[in-house]
Amino acid sequence: MARIVVKFGGTSMANIERIRHSALHVKREVEAGNEVAVVVSAMSGKTNELVGWVNEASKLHDAREYDAVVASGEQVTAGLMAIVLAEMGIQSRSFSGWQVPIKTDDAHGAARITEIDPTELDKRMKDGWVPVITGFQGISPHGRVTTLGRGGSDTSAVAVVAAAVGADRCDIYTDVDGVYTTDPRIVPKAQRMTKISFEEMLEMASLGAKVLMLRSVEMAMAYKVRLLVRSSFDDPNAPQIAPDGTPGVPGTLVCDEDEIMEKQIVSGVTLAKAEAKITLRDVKDKPGVAAAIFGQLADQGIIVDMIVQNIADDGATTDITFTVPDSEYDKAVKALENNGGKFEYARLSGSKGGAKVSVVGVGMRSHAGVASSMFKALADKGINIQLITTSEIKTSVLIDEEYAELAVRALHTYYGLDKKDA
Amino acid sequence: MARIVVKFGGTSMANIERIRHSALHVKREVEAGNEVAVVVSAMSGKTNELVGWVNEASKLHDAREYDAVVASGEQVTAGLMAIVLAEMGIQSRSFSGWQVPIKTDDAHGAARITEIDPTELDKRMKDGWVPVITGFQGISPHGRVTTLGRGGSDTSAVAVVAAAVGADRCDIYTDVDGVYTTDPRIVPKAQRMTKISFEEMLEMASLGAKVLMLRSVEMAMAYKVRLLVRSSFDDPNAPQIAPDGTPGVPGTLVCDEDEIMEKQIVSGVTLAKAEAKITLRDVKDKPGVAAAIFGQLADQGIIVDMIVQNIADDGATTDITFTVPDSEYDKAVKALENNGGKFEYARLSGSKGGAKVSVVGVGMRSHAGVASSMFKALADKGINIQLITTSEIKTSVLIDEEYAELAVRALHTYYGLDKKDA
Repeated sequence: MARIVVKFGGTSMANIERIRHSALHVKREVEAGNEVAVVVSAMSGKTNELVGWVNEASKLHDAREYDAVVASGEQVTAGLMAIVLAEMGIQSRSFSGWQVPIKTDDAHGAARITEIDPTELDKRMKDGWVPVITGFQGISPHGRVTTLGRGGSDTSAVAVVAAAVGADRCDIYTDVDGVYTTDPRIVPKAQRMTKISFEEMLEMASLGAKVLMLRSVEMAMAYKVRLLVRSSFDDPNAPQIAPDGTPGVPGTLVCDEDEIMEKQIVSGVTLAKAEAKITLRDVKDKPGVAAAIFGQLADQGIIVDMIVQNIADDGATTDITFTVPDSEYDKAVKALENNGGKFEYARLSGSKGGAKVSVVGVGMRSHAGVASSMFKALADKGINIQLITTSEIKTSVLIDEEYAELAVRALHTYYGLDKKDA
Repeated sequence: MARIVVKFGGTSMANIERIRHSALHVKREVEAGNEVAVVVSAMSGKTNELVGWVNEASKLHDAREYDAVVASGEQVTAGLMAIVLAEMGIQSRSFSGWQVPIKTDDAHGAARITEIDPTELDKRMKDGWVPVITGFQGISPHGRVTTLGRGGSDTSAVAVVAAAVGADRCDIYTDVDGVYTTDPRIVPKAQRMTKISFEEMLEMASLGAKVLMLRSVEMAMAYKVRLLVRSSFDDPNAPQIAPDGTPGVPGTLVCDEDEIMEKQIVSGVTLAKAEAKITLRDVKDKPGVAAAIFGQLADQGIIVDMIVQNIADDGATTDITFTVPDSEYDKAVKALENNGGKFEYARLSGSKGGAKVSVVGVGMRSHAGVASSMFKALADKGINIQLITTSEIKTSVLIDEEYAELAVRALHTYYGLDKKDA
C-alpha cells in the first residue's frame, strides 16, 4: 500500500468522457489498496477562455479579480471528477484551494504556497476517501482566492501537496507517456526511460523536454517527492507490473539518483533549434564587464542561453560568445551596439540558425572523457562544433542547424540509447 | 442618498459588452451619491451548461458536488463585473457567497439562507466601495458551497441581501423594462405600471407574468424590501427623474400597498392558456373526499389550478370542477378513473382548450361589484364563462381559448388600463 497524489492535466479533463477515463486510473490505484488524492486542472482551453474574458474586461485588471475568475475552471473539474468517482463506487469529495486550505502569499496571479494544512486530506485518505483538489489555486492571508501562475506552477503545487500529505509518489498524468531519451520525432529509436534522476530531469526540462516544467521538478526534488510521468490516455485496466517496486506501466519515474541502479553515462540527448550566436571580440577585460553586457541584454528581456568566455592572447582583452533565440538576435545586437558606454569591444559578429545539442547523464560525474567522446562522435559525421559548454551532468555544443537531427541521431546511437528491437 | 442592492440576470451578464453596459447603470447610481452593492447571475446559458456536465457525469450525483460545479458560473461574472467597474474608476471587489459569508442550511441544490453577516459589505459600502456578490450561492454549516436552487431563488436571495444591509431599494435588472397591465403582445395599449403592490405582484407572478418569480416577491414582501424591476438594456445615461421619490425611469416599483396613492380597482389583466377543465358529477360527499381526489392527482405530479365545488341539489352528492394544463389532461383523467376506490362519482366530463383570464387589483378589497362588472364586460362581447374563482384581490374566469385575446382586450379597456396616447 502506498499513498499517492495523482495529477491530471487539462487534456485529461477535457470533457466528461475524458474525466471518466482518467477516473478509471484513480479507481485502479484505489483498488490496489493505495490511498489516493487527486489534483485536477481545468478543462483544456478553459483557462485561456477565462483569461481572455478578464483581458477583454480590462487590460489593467485587479489581479485579485483575475484570480477569482480564473480559479473557477478547476472548481468545475474537481466537482465533476468527484461525481464520476462516486459513481464508480469510490467515496470522494472535491476541495477548493481555500477549503483544504492551501495557504499562499498574496502575490495574486503568481502566488507561492506558504502552508498546506494536511489534516482534513490526511483524515479523508485514511478513511478511504479520495479527495479531489482544485489545482493551481489557494487562499491569501486576506481570504481572497489566489492562483499560482501558469506554466508548471500547477504541477509544482502538486509536489507541495504530495509532500504535505507525506505521499510516496506523485503521478503526473499528461498526454505523453513519459520522458524519452530524445525526441522520438527525430529519432524513431528513442526509448522511454523507466527512471530518471531529478538532476537529469532538470537538465532535460530546461533543455526543452516539455513534459515537466523546470519549477515543478525543482519543487519535487526539494520536497523529495518521486514523480511518475505517465499518460492518462493509457488503458486504465492494463496490468501495472512493478517487479522492482517501481511501476512497470508506461511511464517515467523521476526520483533520487540513489534509486537508479544502472546508471547510464548518458541518459538522454536533447535539442534546441533556432539559436543565434553573438561574439564580442576584444572586450576590455575589467571587473564587472560580463555583468554589464548581460545586464544590458536582461534589461531588454532577452534570455541568454550558452555563454563562453576566453582570455585573449594579450591578457587585457577577452572574447565573449553567447547564444540567444533567433527571434531576439536583431534586438540583442542593437542593445549591445547602443550600450551607452557601459562596456567596450572591438568587433561584434554573429549569426542565426544554430542548434544546441546536449547529452545529459548523472553518470558523467564519475566518467572522464564524455565530452571528448561526444566531439569525436560528431566529428565522425563531419559536423563542425561552434561552441561548447559543460556542466556537471551535461555537455552541450552549438552546431549548424542543418546538422541538428543528424547529430542527435548519431549521439543517441553512440551512447547506446537506441531501442533494441526497433 | 440611498442604499441600493442591484441585481443583474444572465442576459445582462451574457458577455463583456453586456457586463460593461450593465456596469454603467451601477456607475450612474454611484455618481448620484448612492451606496450600491451588486449581485450577479452567471452568463446566460452557462448554468445550463454546468448542470448538463454534472448530469452527464452521473444522473445520481452528490448534490454537494453539483453545487461546487454550478456555483462557479457566478464567480466568473462577479470577478468580471468588479474588473469592469474598477476600470470605470469605481472601487469594487467581488465576493463569493462563502466570502460574505452568506450562510445557508445544507440542503444542497436548494439551500435556504440562514444568516447573512453584513459587516464586511456594510463597511465597504460606507467606504464608497461597490461589493459585487455572486448570486445564487452560499456556504453550508460544513463549509461546503451551496446553491439556492434555480427559478427565482437567486432573486429571492437578493431580497435577503438587501434586507441584511438595510437597503432602501433592490433594483432587479432584467431583459424587460417592468411589469405591464397585461401582455403587450396581446394588448398593444398595455401600460407599464409605475408601482404595484407586493400582493398584486404575487397574483401577477403566479398567473404567469414571468418577470419576477413567486418566491422572490414573497421574500421581498416578508423583508419589506422594495423591488424596482427594470431593463439593463436601457440607456444608462438617460435622465433618472424621480419627482415623487420613486424613479421616473422605465421600470416598475414593487412596494407596500401604502406607498401607492392612486389605487386602481383593477391593476392588471392576466391570461393563462391551454387550461383543461375536468368535472366530476355526483361525487359522494363525505369528509375527506376532496383531499382524496386532489391527493390522487398530486401523486401523479399533476398541478391543479382553479377548483370549484358546488353542493348538488340532493345534499348528498357534489359536483367538483377543476383545471389542469392541457398537456396533463389525459394523465389526469386516467388517474381519476383508476383511483382504487378512494372516491366515487357518477360521471367524468371535461375538455381541453380553456383559457383563464384574471383581473387583479388591491382596490377590489374595498370595491364591491368588480366580479359582476367583469362578467358583464365579457357578456357584452358574447363570451361565455365556464368557471369562476375569486380571491381577495383577484377574480378569474375560465373561457374558451378562442376568445382569450378578445376577453383580455375587453377587460383591459373596461377597467381603464389602456394607454391614453396609443
